[in-house]
Amino acid sequence: MPEQTPKSRAVVLLSGGLDSATALAIAQHQDGMACSTLAIDYGQRHRHELAAAERVAHAAGVSDHRVITIDLRAIGGSSLTSDTPVPKDRDHGAMSSAIPSTYVPARNLIFLSISAAVAEVTGARFIYLGINALDYSGYPDCRQPFIDAFQQTVNLATKAGTTGSPLEIRAPLVHMTKAQIIRAGTSLSVNYALTHSCYDPIVRDSAILACGHCDSCILRREGFVAAGVTDPTGYAR
Amino acid sequence: MPEQTPKSRAVVLLSGGLDSATALAIAQHQDGMACSTLAIDYGQRHRHELAAAERVAHAAGVSDHRVITIDLRAIGGSSLTSDTPVPKDRDHGAMSSAIPSTYVPARNLIFLSISAAVAEVTGARFIYLGINALDYSGYPDCRQPFIDAFQQTVNLATKAGTTGSPLEIRAPLVHMTKAQIIRAGTSLSVNYALTHSCYDPIVRDSAILACGHCDSCILRREGFVAAGVTDPTGYAR
Repeated sequence: MPEQTPKSRAVVLLSGGLDSATALAIAQHQDGMACSTLAIDYGQRHRHELAAAERVAHAAGVSDHRVITIDLRAIGGSSLTSDTPVPKDRDHGAMSSAIPSTYVPARNLIFLSISAAVAEVTGARFIYLGINALDYSGYPDCRQPFIDAFQQTVNLATKAGTTGSPLEIRAPLVHMTKAQIIRAGTSLSVNYALTHSCYDPIVRDSAILACGHCDSCILRREGFVAAGVTDPTGYAR
Repeated sequence: MPEQTPKSRAVVLLSGGLDSATALAIAQHQDGMACSTLAIDYGQRHRHELAAAERVAHAAGVSDHRVITIDLRAIGGSSLTSDTPVPKDRDHGAMSSAIPSTYVPARNLIFLSISAAVAEVTGARFIYLGINALDYSGYPDCRQPFIDAFQQTVNLATKAGTTGSPLEIRAPLVHMTKAQIIRAGTSLSVNYALTHSCYDPIVRDSAILACGHCDSCILRREGFVAAGVTDPTGYAR
């Protein structure tokens, strides 16, 4: 019997949404990684996503799921970390024409930096994140040139990067449509019922329902329709 | 009378130590910046440095001093965020030959990323930090190539950087010796008695004394001697 090669280790950033759940499935089942997962409690108004991230990690059999706390409310500048209303019922043109109020300053830069610290401590050589340039063209930190630049920077900044074990940052969904992501995840048996995408969820009879009208709900809903996959999400309307 | 040009805005990362206090003085008095200051509560064992950062900001007349909390203890990997003993009585050869246990994984990357978010929200175009490559050659994230790469990355990641107001990262002390830093700060009236450098301070009769023997104390002590400036630090021995 041939000797089994030990799996490469990866840290996967989980938001609790469908994109990062898919990125985790790709890391585990397409790329054969042994994964730790990381969720960031940054004072987001949609805190139910932290519970969703934990459910996703548990369902994927991840034994090392971490939650790191950073108070981005103290910085402000985003409707996701304040009481400013989240935009509703926007069409794709409006979503991609400008940076929306849901943009959190430097969020992916901060999250990737924290992931790099976790990767260094766990001995992981890969970081996966579920960013996507097509649906979120308004967010500058969801594009491949940012990922490439970050990879260079992190390898100049860390013990791992400067002692011959450089980190590789993988964003497998960056050029996929929401429908392609949902089809890829479905073929890898991702249970999207465990995920939450809504920026502004509503609690009704102790169930957490997606609002159905924020940018994130609109993209999710349309994605399931376009993928021809049944949407398991509970929407408030 | 000629019209006064409004000052450029900067965010200065303050650790409470002498380097960052000097970087603040350079930003204010040599470069003429209007400064906000930022200290990071990351669960460091030498938490007295947060009080020192506040004193330094207050003495410098900074009206916007922020403290952002991120729990790096949950990541570990450093003697500064755990109960592992801090190394003592090392010579310069030992300090620079390897990355020490006081290295905090990806710390400056994380701190600069948070600073970038603060800069974006406050409209600052400059970030100052007091890193120094000569005395801390063991830390990969204290070198100019890292700063240059980070500046590129941040300008791909943020609203400010991608909409025509790029951030500039300044590390004015990066190539200075500790003695040069102390002389520069002294000429700009920095009160070093307000600063704390020790990784492992000792409380005696309710006074916080520097241990005098960790890498940071050794470099500070020797720096004052080499600069010919009286050291105002209270050392335990």
